[in-house]
Parts: sequence; C-alpha cells; structure tokens
Amino acid sequence: MMAHAVNIKDYMQNIGIEARKASRLMASADTNQKNIALKAIANAILRESSALLAANQQDLDAAKANGLDSAMLDRLTLTEKSISSMVEGLTQIANLADPIGEMSDFKYMPSGIQVGKMRVPLGVIGIIYEARPNVTVDAAGLCIKSGNAAILRGGSEALHCNQALAKLVQEGLAVANLPATGVQVIETTDRAAVGELITMKAYVDVIVPRGGKGLIERVSNEARIPVIKHLDGNCHVYVDDDADFDKALRIVENSKTQRLGTCNTAESLLIARSVAGTMLPKIADMLSANGIEIRGCAETCALVKQAKVATNEDFYTEYLAAIISCKVVENLDEAIAHINTHSSQHTESIVTENYTKARRFLREVDSSSVMVNASTRFADGFEYGLGAEIGISTDKLHARGPVGLEGLTSLKYIVLGDGQVRA
Amino acid sequence: MMAHAVNIKDYMQNIGIEARKASRLMASADTNQKNIALKAIANAILRESSALLAANQQDLDAAKANGLDSAMLDRLTLTEKSISSMVEGLTQIANLADPIGEMSDFKYMPSGIQVGKMRVPLGVIGIIYEARPNVTVDAAGLCIKSGNAAILRGGSEALHCNQALAKLVQEGLAVANLPATGVQVIETTDRAAVGELITMKAYVDVIVPRGGKGLIERVSNEARIPVIKHLDGNCHVYVDDDADFDKALRIVENSKTQRLGTCNTAESLLIARSVAGTMLPKIADMLSANGIEIRGCAETCALVKQAKVATNEDFYTEYLAAIISCKVVENLDEAIAHINTHSSQHTESIVTENYTKARRFLREVDSSSVMVNASTRFADGFEYGLGAEIGISTDKLHARGPVGLEGLTSLKYIVLGDGQVRA
Repeated sequence: MMAHAVNIKDYMQNIGIEARKASRLMASADTNQKNIALKAIANAILRESSALLAANQQDLDAAKANGLDSAMLDRLTLTEKSISSMVEGLTQIANLADPIGEMSDFKYMPSGIQVGKMRVPLGVIGIIYEARPNVTVDAAGLCIKSGNAAILRGGSEALHCNQALAKLVQEGLAVANLPATGVQVIETTDRAAVGELITMKAYVDVIVPRGGKGLIERVSNEARIPVIKHLDGNCHVYVDDDADFDKALRIVENSKTQRLGTCNTAESLLIARSVAGTMLPKIADMLSANGIEIRGCAETCALVKQAKVATNEDFYTEYLAAIISCKVVENLDEAIAHINTHSSQHTESIVTENYTKARRFLREVDSSSVMVNASTRFADGFEYGLGAEIGISTDKLHARGPVGLEGLTSLKYIVLGDGQVRA
Repeated sequence: MMAHAVNIKDYMQNIGIEARKASRLMASADTNQKNIALKAIANAILRESSALLAANQQDLDAAKANGLDSAMLDRLTLTEKSISSMVEGLTQIANLADPIGEMSDFKYMPSGIQVGKMRVPLGVIGIIYEARPNVTVDAAGLCIKSGNAAILRGGSEALHCNQALAKLVQEGLAVANLPATGVQVIETTDRAAVGELITMKAYVDVIVPRGGKGLIERVSNEARIPVIKHLDGNCHVYVDDDADFDKALRIVENSKTQRLGTCNTAESLLIARSVAGTMLPKIADMLSANGIEIRGCAETCALVKQAKVATNEDFYTEYLAAIISCKVVENLDEAIAHINTHSSQHTESIVTENYTKARRFLREVDSSSVMVNASTRFADGFEYGLGAEIGISTDKLHARGPVGLEGLTSLKYIVLGDGQVRA
C-alpha cells in the first residue's frame, strides 16, 4: 500500500512512467512468453484460492459495515466457482492466437516498394472498473496477450482482493521473465487517482471504463485520452410484414426475457402494421406470461389489452427490467427511421423472410451489431468468436461492438524495399 | 453569407443538425450516385474556373492588404494548374472502389449464427484547415465517396474562394440527387465557430485538422470529439552495420533532401559505430553538397569536419529545414531505443542487408510507418496505394499512418441467422 504522505499526482505519474517503460517489453514479448505468464497466473490463483477468499471476506465485511446493497455485495463476492472461471478465462486467452506481429495486405506498388500492415499493441491501457474482482484477472489477461501494459483501478470496495490478485498476476509475469510493472494495480482508493489516470496523455494510450453509467459518463466527460466505452443498450427487434411467426415469437422472447439486465437485451419491439393484428396479441401474451410489462403506442394498446400507454420517453429508455416498449410501424422505412432516432446504436434485429428488406436493414441501421432472424442476446464477444471480451463499444471510432484482443491493438504500416527512393 | 446578427452557437448547432440528417442519406447513397456527384463537381469546377480564379483574387488582394507573408500567399493562390489537379483528384476518387457496404470475415459460430463485418461511414466529419482552398475539394470528395456528411471550416483568408467552391460541390450533390447539406462550408470567419464545431458531440463524429502545429494543438486540446491528427514528423534513417553503402547513401539523400518541408522528411540520421568511420564522412559530404547542415554527437563531430555539435534538443526536433541531426550508435538495440525515445512515431527506416535485424526493427520500432531499405519519403497515401489521403495520423487508435477512404469508415458487426436464440 502506498504511503499516505505521497502526493497522488506524483504517485500516478510514477505508475505512468513505469507502465510506459514496461509497455516496450510487453510489446516485444513472444507468444510463448505471454502464454507462460497467463498459465502461471492461473496456477497461482488456484494455489492461493483460500487466501483470495479470505481477502475477499475482508472486503465483504467492510462492505457490509458500510451498508452496501445486496446487488453490490453479490458482484463483490468471490466464490470457488468464480475463481475457477477466472482460471478458465486465462486458459482460454492463452489458447487464442497471438494478434501481435500479424502481417497482412502486402502489395507491390509501382515504385517497387512493398507495402503492408503489422498488428501492434496500443501501448498502455488504463482500465477503471467497479466491484467485480474478476475484472482484475480478465483485464490483465487480455492486456498481457495483446502485448500491452495495463494500469488497473478497481473499486475501492474490492481493494484487498484486488491487491491479492495483483500479486499473483505479477508473480506470473515474473515466471515468464516479463516486468511486474506490465500490470499495475492502483493501491489507493483516493478518487483523485482516477482523475490523474484519465488525463496522463504521455503515459496512457486508451482508457476502458467498465461499470455503471455514472462511471462511464464521468470517465468519458473528464478523460483527455481516448476512451473505449459503451453507454446504453436500447436494443430493438423489428417484426417485419414478411416475418415467420415462430421465429418472431422465439426471437422476441429470447431477446427480451433470457436476461433482463444485460446491455444486449431488447428494450423495444417494433412490428409492421400488416401483421400486428395477427401476431402482436400472441407475442404480447408470451411476454406477459414471462412477467414483462408492455408499454405501447396507441395502436399497440388497441390490440393488446394488458398494454400500458408508452410515453415518448419510453422509446428512448434502456429499462434493464421486466418492461418493453412497443410500437406499430407502417413499414421498413418507418422501422429504420425509428431505430436510427431512438436506439443507442448497440444492437438491432429484423425478423423477416424477405431478402431485399433484410439487406436494406443491414445496410441502413446504424448500430454496432445489426442482425437478421437472430436474438439480440448474441451481441457478445464469446458468441462472436472473439474468445474474450473487454467490453462492448457503442462508439464508431476504432472499435465498434464487442471488443476482444484485436480491439486492444492497432495497425502500423510496413514498407519493404531494396533501396527505393521517391522520384 | 450568414447574417451577422445570428448567434454563432445557434448557427453551428443548426449546421450540425442538418449534417446529421444529411449523413443518413449520404450513408445510403449507392456507388454510382456518389461517383456521379464527384464527376459533376469536377465538371462544375472546370466550367467555373475563371470565376474561381476571380474569387481567389479577391482573397489574395485582401490577404496582401492584411500583410500575409509570401509562404501563406503561395498556399492561398489558385492557378490553372491547381484547378486541374483538384479535378484530377476528384476523378481519382471516383475511380476508387467504394469502401461502404463491403462485407468481410463471415464465419459460422457453434450457435448456428453467421457473424461478419460491414464497412460503414463514420457519420459526420468536421474538417478544419488553413489557407489552401484545394482542401475544400479534396476533403469534400473523400467524404462523399466514404458516405459521410462533411462540415468544412477553411481559413478565413480563403473565404471567397471556399464559398465559390462550396456552391459547385453542392451543385454536384444535387445532380446526383444527394442533399446539398451533405457538404457544408462554415460561412463565418468567427473563431468561436471552431470552438462549437469541435465540441458538438451530438452532431459530429470525428474532427480532422489539417494545417500547422498551432492549429492541430489547439484543436486536439479543446476538442470533445475524437480527432484524427498528426503532429510532428521527426523521422529517422538508421544505417546498420550490415548496410549496403550505395543504398544507404541513396536513401539518406532522398529521405532528407528530396523535399525539406514535409512531415515524412528524415530529420535524424543514426549510424552503427562499426561502419561510421568508413560511411559517415561520405554520407556527410553528400549532405553538405545538398546544402544540409549536420548537427552531430561527439563521435560524429570527430569523423565529420563540417559537423556542428548537436544539443540534446536537436534529437527531438523536426527541423523542416536544411538541417539533420546525426548520432553514432553501438548497435541495433541502441538505435531502436533512441528512436522509440526521440522520434514522433511517424516514419523510420533501417538500411541493412541483415534479415534478422530488419525483422527486429520492423517489430520493435513503434512508429506509424516502419521501413527496410526505402526512403522515409514514401510514407504517403498515394505511394501506399490508398488513392487519396486526408492526412497522416500519428495517433494509434483508429487510423495510424496515411489516412485514406478507409480511415473515414468504421466496421459494424452483421449477424445472419435462421431464427437462432441464445441458450
């Protein structure tokens, strides 16, 4: 733990300087070295699982004493099971192909030079998260494999557990002959440390906030460094005139009810007028049977007796709860216009058998994931085959949608010549 | 011209709202429509070339009256030749493949969904530039082809010419049935307009500043929107122990002397100690014969009689002038360490016949372009086959190195299913 007398700015600058130095070594680590580190961390976590549970208990006791709510306590709690899934996650990351050094697109130019690209780490990644201690291990694993140095700032309520995990991460780095400063955990709960982290342009290349909306908004408003963030997930399912009813029913059910609190859960249902009369009452009954409240437009309310009247605000809302907004639309044009106005550009799905309309929906809907005849719940790094996920980006620049190892990398140009000069 | 009474904030917000609306139509424009617009703009420019020259003369007269220096007047001047190269540039952009809607990487997942990516426009691009009126046309052309809406803010000294060009751009958009608001030129010279443009998060997706360091620093410090920027080009050539002397001489000469004022000009020469005694005096004589002043480390000064002593500051400096810094290094390790500490991460080249050292240099040098046996002057969108260039990015996130059409796009995920839901 840092001495209390140390100035936060100096403390953070020093972490930044060390991270920048370590990033050179992390970037040039070979694939085998990185995998050895990941496996050594996994083994250390298994070996120290009772110490980790004890450290977590310290955090839990303090959290209870401070009156944290049960949802927060739940996220904070480490169990045998969550320890094995951390270990499993590290093993999966070790098994992924190394993105670093990958070369592509080499072409000869008329001048005789050959130009291509090489995938490289971003450098130093700052990750700011809340209660869940498993993020410490997931984030460290992804940064190590992608050749980046990491500065991790976990929630103050998980400090003991995070410090215990940090030691094991650093032990694993040492086994692979990588610098302990490749992954640093900020050892102060002072909020000023976050302010420093998100403005140390010289030492940090990108910030990834993981947590609630309050955290993400604070970070993205105050950061002077690029942020890979995701804000709301106000996801839509549009049931088209040419929808297959069984698919529509199944996809709406899964998108809305499989899990209520995730960002890829559907929050709004649109349905074409020509099929609303036949399909909507049945879909609504299925939703009601799942305990979902329906807030609809006037036409919805006329067709669905249990529906409540939606306000304009409802159509902009990510409920993360057992509520769905519902609107009858004239056609595909109105559906696309409604989505592009109201959605948070996370994930939208059309249910249709019509080729031309499917193709238009894919092209014209401006969201990070656009789907045909599939549940919005698939918008996820694991389901997309990325192998791991550091978050889902609703930004357009750099990474859009689920962000895996590749999102923590960049491409530089490579030029191979035989002495060519420019005419 | 906007009425003087209009509040700048309202004026800019309105431009933003119109740009956001237009961006939907620009994004869904098909390839043919975009090419028709580009060719119509080219024809309009040819047709109106005398009116353009007259508008430019108005700007030049005002600039002279305001005492602008000759370099600035030079950049401001439109000629028959610069008009034909604008027309040529538009034709080249029309001939490039359309990046929008390109689909790639489709793979089936174990769940049965097929996941891939589609290339999409960024949305609204704000471009801020200085005297050169040709940027108005280049930037408009690149934004149109990449399906983006553009808000252009040229230098106040080029206002008449930019307004005349804007009309022709809008005429071309109309011919292709695209909205005139697809490319808007800010019609006020009030600097507050830039302040609004770079903070209108809701309406602008990315800012591209093109101009001197002062402009770029102001924009990147004050922007609340991502910026694609390039700062210095302190580029290095490293002559390795295993360099071929003729290639070294040719590459150093071309990198330093072909043009002095470009960002990809070499500003620093590193040479391995084992060959410095034989090669450096000859390279230095070639540089001196080209009128280049050499500022060297102590060893350089011992070997090269005409060299002056370099300060530490020299090794961090982008001269953009007939000066080069020079340092003798022990080996590749020292060369890479020196570059990664002193360079601006723009472009670096190694001259070597050694495979292993070339490979290490490519991997370990952290710059946007890394080269073997080629002149740094090749770091350019045209030379890399991008067909056009909106700038060179020294950032790592999103675009790195020369930025062409692809740098003005993003990738969204596409999911194709047959009714799949998540288990």
